[in-house]
Formats: sequence, C-alpha cells, structure tokens
Amino acid sequence: MEALDYHAEERRKAEFDVEEMKIVWAGSRQAYEISDRVARLVASDPVFRKDNRTMLSRKDLFKDTLRKAAHAWKRIIELRLSEEEASKLRFFVDQPVFTDLHWGMFIPAIKGQGNEEQQQKWLPMAYKMQIIGCYAQTELGHGSNVQGLETTATFDPETDEFVIHSPTLTSSKWWPGGLGKVSTHALVYARLIADGQDHGVHGFIVQLRSLDDHLPLPGITVGDIGMKFGSGAYNSMDNGVLRFDHVRIPRDQMLMGVSQVTREGKYMQSDVPRQLVYGTMVYVRQKIVADASCALSRAVCIATRYSAVRRQFGSHNGGPETQVIDYKTQQSRLFPLLASAYAFRFVGEWLKWLYTDVTQRLQANDFSTLPEVHACTAGLKSVTTSATADAIEECRKLCGGHGYLSSSGLPELFAVYVPACTYEGDNVVLLLQVARFLMKTVSQLGSGKKPVGTIAYMGRSEHLLQCRCEVERAEDWLKPNVILEAFEARAARMSVTCAKNLNNFPNQEEGFAQLATDLAEAAVAHVQLIIVSKFIEKLEEDIPGKGVKRQLEILFNVYALSLLHKHLGDFVASGCITPKQGALANEQLRLLYSQIRPNAIALVDAFNYTDHYLGSVLGRYDGNVYPKLYEEAWKDPLNETVVPDGYHEYIRPILKQHIRVARL
Amino acid sequence: MEALDYHAEERRKAEFDVEEMKIVWAGSRQAYEISDRVARLVASDPVFRKDNRTMLSRKDLFKDTLRKAAHAWKRIIELRLSEEEASKLRFFVDQPVFTDLHWGMFIPAIKGQGNEEQQQKWLPMAYKMQIIGCYAQTELGHGSNVQGLETTATFDPETDEFVIHSPTLTSSKWWPGGLGKVSTHALVYARLIADGQDHGVHGFIVQLRSLDDHLPLPGITVGDIGMKFGSGAYNSMDNGVLRFDHVRIPRDQMLMGVSQVTREGKYMQSDVPRQLVYGTMVYVRQKIVADASCALSRAVCIATRYSAVRRQFGSHNGGPETQVIDYKTQQSRLFPLLASAYAFRFVGEWLKWLYTDVTQRLQANDFSTLPEVHACTAGLKSVTTSATADAIEECRKLCGGHGYLSSSGLPELFAVYVPACTYEGDNVVLLLQVARFLMKTVSQLGSGKKPVGTIAYMGRSEHLLQCRCEVERAEDWLKPNVILEAFEARAARMSVTCAKNLNNFPNQEEGFAQLATDLAEAAVAHVQLIIVSKFIEKLEEDIPGKGVKRQLEILFNVYALSLLHKHLGDFVASGCITPKQGALANEQLRLLYSQIRPNAIALVDAFNYTDHYLGSVLGRYDGNVYPKLYEEAWKDPLNETVVPDGYHEYIRPILKQHIRVARL
Repeated sequence: MEALDYHAEERRKAEFDVEEMKIVWAGSRQAYEISDRVARLVASDPVFRKDNRTMLSRKDLFKDTLRKAAHAWKRIIELRLSEEEASKLRFFVDQPVFTDLHWGMFIPAIKGQGNEEQQQKWLPMAYKMQIIGCYAQTELGHGSNVQGLETTATFDPETDEFVIHSPTLTSSKWWPGGLGKVSTHALVYARLIADGQDHGVHGFIVQLRSLDDHLPLPGITVGDIGMKFGSGAYNSMDNGVLRFDHVRIPRDQMLMGVSQVTREGKYMQSDVPRQLVYGTMVYVRQKIVADASCALSRAVCIATRYSAVRRQFGSHNGGPETQVIDYKTQQSRLFPLLASAYAFRFVGEWLKWLYTDVTQRLQANDFSTLPEVHACTAGLKSVTTSATADAIEECRKLCGGHGYLSSSGLPELFAVYVPACTYEGDNVVLLLQVARFLMKTVSQLGSGKKPVGTIAYMGRSEHLLQCRCEVERAEDWLKPNVILEAFEARAARMSVTCAKNLNNFPNQEEGFAQLATDLAEAAVAHVQLIIVSKFIEKLEEDIPGKGVKRQLEILFNVYALSLLHKHLGDFVASGCITPKQGALANEQLRLLYSQIRPNAIALVDAFNYTDHYLGSVLGRYDGNVYPKLYEEAWKDPLNETVVPDGYHEYIRPILKQHIRVARL
Repeated sequence: MEALDYHAEERRKAEFDVEEMKIVWAGSRQAYEISDRVARLVASDPVFRKDNRTMLSRKDLFKDTLRKAAHAWKRIIELRLSEEEASKLRFFVDQPVFTDLHWGMFIPAIKGQGNEEQQQKWLPMAYKMQIIGCYAQTELGHGSNVQGLETTATFDPETDEFVIHSPTLTSSKWWPGGLGKVSTHALVYARLIADGQDHGVHGFIVQLRSLDDHLPLPGITVGDIGMKFGSGAYNSMDNGVLRFDHVRIPRDQMLMGVSQVTREGKYMQSDVPRQLVYGTMVYVRQKIVADASCALSRAVCIATRYSAVRRQFGSHNGGPETQVIDYKTQQSRLFPLLASAYAFRFVGEWLKWLYTDVTQRLQANDFSTLPEVHACTAGLKSVTTSATADAIEECRKLCGGHGYLSSSGLPELFAVYVPACTYEGDNVVLLLQVARFLMKTVSQLGSGKKPVGTIAYMGRSEHLLQCRCEVERAEDWLKPNVILEAFEARAARMSVTCAKNLNNFPNQEEGFAQLATDLAEAAVAHVQLIIVSKFIEKLEEDIPGKGVKRQLEILFNVYALSLLHKHLGDFVASGCITPKQGALANEQLRLLYSQIRPNAIALVDAFNYTDHYLGSVLGRYDGNVYPKLYEEAWKDPLNETVVPDGYHEYIRPILKQHIRVARL
C-alpha cells in the first residue's frame, strides 16, 4: 500500500538531492545518522507522546514531564547511549525539564569552576544522578547585573563554614530551572564575605533537599514561581524561588577552581587564569545559536508545508485555487526565514569550531582572541535569538487563522522559545557589549594594532569608508564578493560614525548612554556581516550532491539581499549603495524567490524532522492537514459532553428569563 | 493612613494635568465618567476576579467564563445600564465570551442585512437573550476568500425551505466564536442555490440547538475546535466547528435586506443598494482600531510602570541602581509605543466620526466616498493591529525575565490579541486592497478626477514628487508641516514608483502578483501618513488643561520621527530626505525622549486603567511589584505540596538507583 503523500508532487519538483542536503544540514554523515536514529526512537515510544500537552493542568503537565525524564534516563542507560546520543534524545523529547539544567549548567559549571578534588567528589554523583543539581544565579531583583546579586556567603572561621543567607526579599533566587520542585542541590551564586571584606560573587554547592524524603533542609524555603507564557511550553519546568535563612555549608563547597578561601578565612586567587571561564560561556552560547537554527527551521518547516497545502483565491474555471506559497507576499515573508534557518545553522557550526579553537588557546595561555570571541558570541546570541523569536511568530501568522490553534504547534513553539532573548544575557545588553568592542577597535585603528578574526575587515576601513558598490544590473547582486563588501562597508561606516558622534559628548560614558540605540544598530550590522561571511565560507567548501551547492547559493543570496532590503536605510544613508542599487537588489530577490519555490518543500524536508518532533498538524510530512485538524478538535476536554458543564447554572437561566429590556 | 505608592515621586514630576489628559484619552468628559464608573464596578465585584485564570483547566476556565457572562448580564439588567455602559462592562470584564459575538456580530448583521420584518422578528429575542447567536462564516478551507465558501443553501420550492448542507470536510464551519458550546442560533453564510443557479454567498439564520435542552438539532454536528494560543487568553471562547447534513430552514430565514428569493424560487436584488453593507464594515473596523489602542496602551502602561520600578546597573557609591526607564535603549523602544497608543487612539476617534459620516452619506445615496473609506479603514485595521501585536511582545521583552511570568499579564494579553491580525481581513490581504486603490488613484491622476479625503494629497503629487525637505537643524523636525510633507512625499513617491514598475509587466494582474511586496509597503506608507495627519488635526483642536497640549505635541513628534527612523530606507531611497536630515531626525528623537521621561508615568496613568483591568503585578498602580510577585508565586497549584506529585514514581527511583555509567 502506498502511503498517502499530498506533497509528493512538490517533492518531485525538487532540483537537488535531498538526502545529501540532510547531511549538510546535520553537519556530517555521522551526525545525521545519530540524529535520525534517536529521533525515530523517541517518536516511536508512546511515553514521549506530546500531542495532548497543551490541554494538561499544570500539575498533570509537571507529572507527565517527570515521567518522561525518568523514562528518558531509563532508556539512556538500557541502550548504553553515548553522551552525544543521550543529549540528542533529551533534545527530541522536546519538553523542558530539570535534567536540562542538571546536564547543561550544573555539571559544566562544576567542571569549569571547581578544582580537581571538587570535580572528583561531585561529578560522579552527578553523572549517575544520585544528586540532581540546578544553577541558582538570578534573583528577584537582579538578572543582567550579576555583580549586583545580594545573597551572601559569609565565612565563619570558627566552624570552617560558609553561612548562606538571603538578606532581602529581592535577594530571593528566582527563575532557576529545576529548582522549584526537583533539585537536591544547587550551585548558588552569592557575595563572598570573608575576612570582613566583600569579594564579589562566587559559586557555592548547596544541598537543598533531603536525599531521603525530598523535604527542604532547615533554613531553606523553596517553591515554584508559577505559570509562564503559554499552555504547555515552559510550564513543564519548575523554575523556582529559593530563600536562605543562615544555611551553613562546609568551606570546601565553594567552587575553588579560580579563587579560594583558606582555613584561616583568607581570600586567594588561584594561579589558574580567570579567563578560563570564558570557555564555558562560548560553549553555552554556541549551543544557543544552534538551538536558534533548530527552532527557526522547525517553524519554517511547518509554515512552508502548510503554505503548499493551503489554497485561497485564484481559481480559474472552477479549477483548484492557488497554493498560498505561490503568492509573492507569502514568499517574501517565508523564504528569507528559510534562508535564515540555513544561515544560522552554518554560523552555529562555525561557533562549534570556534569553541574548540578558543579552548586550545586558553590551555596554551593565549588570551589574545578573547575580546573578539566574546563580542562575536555575544552578538550572535543576540541577533539569532531575536530573529528566531520574531520568525516563529511570523510563521504562525503565515499559517493564517489555523496557526492560532495549539494543534498547529506554533503557539507553543513561540512561547517556549522567547525566553532565549532574555536568558544568558539580555539581547540589548549584549549588543551594547558588542558595540563597546567595536568602538575600542575603531579607536585603536591608527595604533598599528591589527584587528583579527571577525573584526579583521576594520583593518581595511580606509577602503571601506569610501568604496563604491559597482552593481549595475540586478544579477550583479548574485556575486558573494559584491555582497560581502556592501555588508563590510555598512558595518564599518556605522561603527565609525558612532565613534565620531561619541566625540561630541563631554565624556565617553555620557556619549555611550546617549547614543546607545545607534550603537546597538551598529552592533547588529557587525553581527549580520559575520553571518553573511560565514555563509560565504560554507559555499567555498567542497559540497557534494546533485544541485545541493546551487540551492545553498540561492539561499545565501536570499538571506543577504532580504537583509539588505530590510535595512535599506543603513545601506543607502551611509552611501554604501545607491537607491537604484537597492531597487536592483529587490528585483533580484524576486527572481530568487521563484528559484526557491520549486525546492521549498524539499529544503524543509532536509531538516529531517519527524512528525513527533514537529508536533504540528499543519506541518505533517504527508500534508494531510484538514482531516487531522478536524480529528484533533474533538479531543478537547470541552467536547467530552455535548451540553457544556455550566449550562444549567449559567446559560439556561438567561435563555428562559422573562425580562423587559428597558434601556437597551 | 497614606496609601503606599512607589510611583509617587514619578507622579510629582509630571508637567501636565493628568486629570485633563484622562478626558482627552477617553474622548469626552462623559465618556471618561462612564468608563471610570463601570471599570470600578467590575473591579470591585469578586465574580469578575481573573488573577487565577491562566491556571484553570480548559473546562474550568470555560465554566468560569459562563459564570461571568451570566453575572454580567444580571448586573446589566439590575443596574439598567445603557447600551454604551453594558458594552463597557463587557469590555472591562476582559474575558472573551460568546456574548462578544452575540452583541458584536449577530445583532449588527441582522440589523444591517435583514429586512424590516426580519428585524422585528429576531432582534427583540436577541436583545433579551432569549436566543443566543453567533456569526458562522469562516470554514475549515476558506477564510479570506469569502466567495469561495462551500456550504450550500439550496432552495426547495416544494416545501418553501432552504436546505443547508456541508458538502465537503473543508466546508465545515470553523472558528466562529460562541458556536462550539453555547449559541442557539447562527448566522450561516452559504452559497445560495436557487432556480438551478449559484447566486453566491448569502446569510441565513439557522437554529442550532434546542431551546429546551440545548442539544443540537437533527442534522447538526457541532463542537469546540480545541485549545488556542496561550493559557487563559482566547481559550475562554468556544470557537466552534459546525457541519450540516441537509438541514431545512424556512425561506424567510435568509437575510433579505439586500437580495431575496421569492416563493417561486426566483432570486432578486432588492432596491436597497448593496453598498449599505459597507456601513457595518466601517463600524467593525473602527472598533478594531479602538481595541488596538486599548491593547497597546495596556501593554505600554505595564512596561512603563515596571521600567520605573526595575533598577539595574549604574549604582554609584552603594546608592540605588539606575531605573531601567532612564536608559536610552529602553526609551527608544518604549516611548514610540507610548506615542503609538495615543496616535491610534486619535485615529480611532476620527474613524468613529467617519462611520457617522459614511452612514449619513449612504442614507442619502451618496456612494462617492466609499472606495476611499474602504481603503482607509482596511489599511488602518491592518497597520494598527500588526503594530499592536508586535508592540505587546516588545513590551513583554522590555520587562525582562519577569515579563515571561503569567502574573505580568503580558503573555495572556499577547495571546488574546494576536488573532486581530488575521480576523476581519488578513492584514496582508488588506494592504493589497489598499494598494489597488492607490494604483487606481495614480492611474486617474491625469483624468481631472480630484482625489479627496485621506488620498487628497495625491492631487499634489506633481509637487510631492519633486519637493525637497528643508530641514537644516534638528529642531526643524518639530514642525508638523515639515513632517507631514515628508510623509506625503514618501507615500506619493512609493505609489508612483509602483505604478511605473507595474507598466513593465505584460499585464496588470501579473505585475500586481510580482510586485505585491512593494505594493504592500506603499500601502503602509499611505496608512502611516493617515495616522500622522489625524494626529496633527488633533493638535489643531482646542485642548484645555495645563501642559496637556504640549505633551501631545511631544508624543506626536516621537510617533512621526520614530516611524521615519524605522522606515529610513523609504524616505532616503525615494529622495524625500537626505541621509543628513535622517540623522538630524534621530538626534531630535533623543531630545524628545528626555522630554517624555519625567511625564512617562503620568502619561500611562492617563489611560485610567484599574489594577483589575490591567491584570499585571508588574503594572500595579502603586508599583509594589516584588512582594506581590513573591506572593503570587505561592498560589501555583504545584506549590500545594512541598514534595511534588510524581516524586515517588519518577524522582526517588533515579536518585536511589545503583548504576554503573559505562559510556557517559
């Protein structure tokens, strides 16, 4: 029996080898195979069902999440999965849960900030999940300003202990995932007070709950902070609140990898350089960028497939109506997002390489690239997560009314994704950090210090400030070097203009405060250039598979030219391109959309997402949308009875009353 | 005892009379007083509590909604409220419910499309709520393309009845609010088949449920379509699915105001002009624009108040940190939204006038302004709802992490608001309708036909295509006529450019399809000009109250110049302003933000929202945010027990197992 496939015709249209593209998307054949195998494993396991998630009450959802976490752990052990496979499995289970923080924050922080003995003591317990940990940094009153945290850890030399305390209401730990109901331990960030001095914020391992009965230990108040955005979504996570009333922990539970307190209460820096912590930061941020490409590609996959199913208007002589994917308005909103998914994927891949590179350099005591790496990862985190959040909502709108149904999967995807714009560095705060680096680079241009890596183009600023774009016909915009120079010129000019304007202020800080918005825009220009240039580097690789490279070239051009159109004001006002050239780019863009169109379904098939992972009736692989939407509707609890609960109390009395409506 | 008010100092800073501004915002002293009284009435009634709404299961939420609707109706009758007061009361109850459609769509449609007898028969029952009606137009397969609806109403001359039928799955009615569980009647839109001919889509009154036991009548399948975006939000509404299996209704239940079917089955247009239906459309759209300013102002009120409470970074010598509202990045995101709330309010007010005007004209058989009115209302619906949806999410992000909590009120406000971008005309489809009108206007420019109303500026296109902006210093951008001309020039040039480019295509339709995105952008430029010009008209009115007019002038400048900055590419590429002038606008904008800053809290106080209506811990009038956030958290069902349900089954076994981790 042949399987139903409403998209079969679309798939036949594809002008490239989808199987090869799947490997390009996954990064390597091996990565593809692991991912494919684990995704199917999860999809076929009834415990991991998630189609009823948005209908569950908070308590039922949480219990369902605990069940899935326990089952995932069971399977990981039974199948003897590798760390990579285990992490993939948790990824495809696709439900935020305490283990995300245990594996993603608690363990890496002990690895990165603990000393040798601490790692030997705590990591084996953590790896076996004999303890469950979370990362308790953010407080009710402080998020971005980590140095302003109020929780204190005061050393008591009498007992050789730290006293952990919450001196104010705003010092309550607030937000840590896994804290509210599950974690037995937390990495608590608190101000270290020793020797009568405040030594700033440090990390401490604190046990929160008894390992016997799970009750909070004396002096600890802990709970969940309540409902968050959306139904389902992040409500499966027990983001928590935590207060300490003089809780005592042994001295050796301060993370002493970088600094320590001696038995006598003396504070000492270790000989390990502080910069080592940057390694962890690069690691976390490259993961966030990779997650952005996943969330974005998922939304794009749903919107693209549904746009090929949905027909509206344009019927001729009673024939079928036009697929909405054929409308230019739909294409001009959807295809740039499809191109962005690929662009973010490739820059994320490059970040993985950067992490390896920076780790090796740090181990060799080479800290020279750190400022550039910091600016680049901060900027990429900010730009990719903001773009992805907006894109998911845009994809939802591209699905029309039906995108508003939970069964479309898009509302929950949006709700679960948006915190990425805030956590691990608020996106605006991060852009300002990038801008500081840019201003510093500009100020050092005359000094002979040569900018390297992603900022190397600034070394050619003299040329970039006066170069003229040579585009004369629309097809000139297909050349990567033409695009690259335009993006370099825009980024350089915006930075240099900011630097000049800063000089009009009495001091740098005042200027920074006043020009913050311009500076953030210059930072965005710099980061978009990075993404563009990494996409070009990808195109320069040897890419096998019929037509695959051609598709990537088209996607690159769509990504770059749609950005150029969106930020036309930057390009034209800075004189990088003329209005005429802007219009030619737009013209070329339209032609590119027509080239993407026949390949659109295959390009989202290449993400290789199972229907389980997508979790969307609109995005089903087989395109069988309407019957399934209809079927799903009847599962709502409201449909358990024909006459709704409340009819007799609240509807019937209205219908049956005899009133005289005087004023109405 | 003095009431706690953390914003007292902020309120003292205000440079204008807030009480007078409240009247400006409300539209009149009378409107203010009604609104104020009804809002307090709702806020003080425990039945209308909504702080636990996001925690309720679908069924509990629905029952709670029925209870509120019944109670609202009871109060409306007891207090003998006027139609305006009753509608305000439903507004402040702030929970989507079947009565919205009963009063907002079912009754107006019978009024607008029924004939005299039909109105006399059905309206009294509807006014007394002896029947409850909904508006069943959209189907599973058709939304925007109303003419493509598939439900049929076939006249049977034998019995003098229509047979209502759902011939396909995609013809199932899908989305109508109030349909799923409550309505006894529906206005069903179906293809009229009479005399063997398809006469297109018409409206029919169909009874769905028994008035005795609420069971669906024979041949009718009806239910709820399931969960939608968010928790709480629109899930209080029973959006429904409806299928007909040859359901018979008497002939006189076709709405016969405009066309009719005779006893013999002959289809006839009545002598009432079809254009009369446009009156209803203008009415509905002016209401949507008014709702946009409400939703936007609500989000802005929350974000502004919280931005004055939240402090982060910038502490000097241990003093308090900086209020985040003092950061330029915060101001440049928040204050344009504050200004937009006022701008949308004023254009909404003008639309109310337009509705009266167009109604009078229609009654006098003057249809001359209809195309312009249609384009203008379609465009305003599109631009204000899109901007509002984006703005609510931006406000949520402006509240940092805490904006992600349901108790901030913003997630639910977003989820409940976004469908406005899709219903009553998809926003992109509407922009293309505006664009068609613009292209028609341009093509007739030489013909001597003088454009009127909101399109009158096109009559000066010769001047607008070549005029040069005369701004030389930043303060020149404060002049309304300078701003107006820049916006007129931009709109005119974008339309004329599109019209020229259309000529490059073999036919108009192909050109329209290819250039759809440019056309939509030209439409946005036209609509933004309308909003700008109506704001200017407002400023020309006599506005009493100390400093009130001054504040409105500042808000106007912020609105216009922030738009100019956002769409800089349009203005510069079309040569309306130079890059230098663009930079000066930006400079002026920064100064304007500083002028708004001391008035920001008072400007949102002027909306006069109760804490009940705002529904946000972050937006509390008294600014007592942190203790209340802390208090709210403990109300979550997960905190009913210290040890969570599921601990014994799913957490303890993990902690207590003895495994060897081989590969991890």
